[in-house]
Amino acid sequence: MKLYFTPGTISLAVRIVLEDAGATFESELVDFRTHAQRAPEYLAINPKSRVPALVTDRGVLTETPAILAYIAQTHPEARLAPLEDPFALAEVQAFNTYLCSTVHVAMAHRHRGYRWADDPDAIRAMAAKSPEVVAGCFRLIEEDLFKGPFVMGEAYSICDPYLYVLSGWLDRDGIDRTPYPKVDAHFRRMSERPAVRKVLAEWAP
Amino acid sequence: MKLYFTPGTISLAVRIVLEDAGATFESELVDFRTHAQRAPEYLAINPKSRVPALVTDRGVLTETPAILAYIAQTHPEARLAPLEDPFALAEVQAFNTYLCSTVHVAMAHRHRGYRWADDPDAIRAMAAKSPEVVAGCFRLIEEDLFKGPFVMGEAYSICDPYLYVLSGWLDRDGIDRTPYPKVDAHFRRMSERPAVRKVLAEWAP
Repeated sequence: MKLYFTPGTISLAVRIVLEDAGATFESELVDFRTHAQRAPEYLAINPKSRVPALVTDRGVLTETPAILAYIAQTHPEARLAPLEDPFALAEVQAFNTYLCSTVHVAMAHRHRGYRWADDPDAIRAMAAKSPEVVAGCFRLIEEDLFKGPFVMGEAYSICDPYLYVLSGWLDRDGIDRTPYPKVDAHFRRMSERPAVRKVLAEWAP
Repeated sequence: MKLYFTPGTISLAVRIVLEDAGATFESELVDFRTHAQRAPEYLAINPKSRVPALVTDRGVLTETPAILAYIAQTHPEARLAPLEDPFALAEVQAFNTYLCSTVHVAMAHRHRGYRWADDPDAIRAMAAKSPEVVAGCFRLIEEDLFKGPFVMGEAYSICDPYLYVLSGWLDRDGIDRTPYPKVDAHFRRMSERPAVRKVLAEWAP
């Protein structure tokens, strides 16, 4: 397998789960500074022009929730998802889909509003509202979705690195994490995990 | 099981897949005209204040890609997803995640821009750009993702009703479907399926 990644993006969650799984893989930087995500070579791999993309011997996979579940399914010994329990697995996928389609999207309105409007004032209006929308998402995670000590309860799963990466972006965006004590404690606990420390050291500039 | 649904929303995709699965279930209307999605009774079921929500004897599931995969997994005889093939299943989930996190989100900027900005001019700017963003999504589906005759190739899957519902919204939004002939033919073929016709008749006002 080969992971196409960019530090500072959600590809970090996939990189951590590959580490958790003990997977054998190569990785290749897609350098956003040189717009490598829009180069023909990369578009041939992922026409969506985004990261992560995971190349397997069967073909290319995109979309973080799908990639994370694939790694869990192909590395069952790592016990990264409740593979034998359709309801529990659906809860995992529901959580990760919420991160992908609502939380990550809300955060993207701060930095990438040009995706959804051309007018600079509109882009500024989205950036201005983004922290409030993101705060609402984290309130829902804190009060309704997070079971503790891990996202899904006692068992670590593919939800944990995904939430960890988005929680970390709160700092970048100047959003206080202390109103969400369970999320905050989870972030700190995740930061101490050897797999996370190893990947962060590897990806440090 | 009990499906909480609203006609005109993506809950239609779940309703069709329940029909495809031959599932036994009840359903209950969440009437957006009376803001029932924000009533305490519904928030107790789905604090996200959205539809669909599927109540099972184990608990409530939300997020369309997760619900669709759950129905496929719990009704294996209906063959709605390649359950025994992790890569093929990940392709299904990647497609549905793209619909959820990118295509549906792009469409929501036409009608629900208030989620991401407060300024009326900004909301108008999002609505104005939405058709162009949605068209880009359907171009990608047409050229890169759709295998044909069904989304994933020869086998019908949970991707098909999901794409069908979003393709149908192109009409509502005044976006021409003819530049996407594979998607257009798929929409017409889906419209003729007995399960789809039955559900549409049931949900007609």
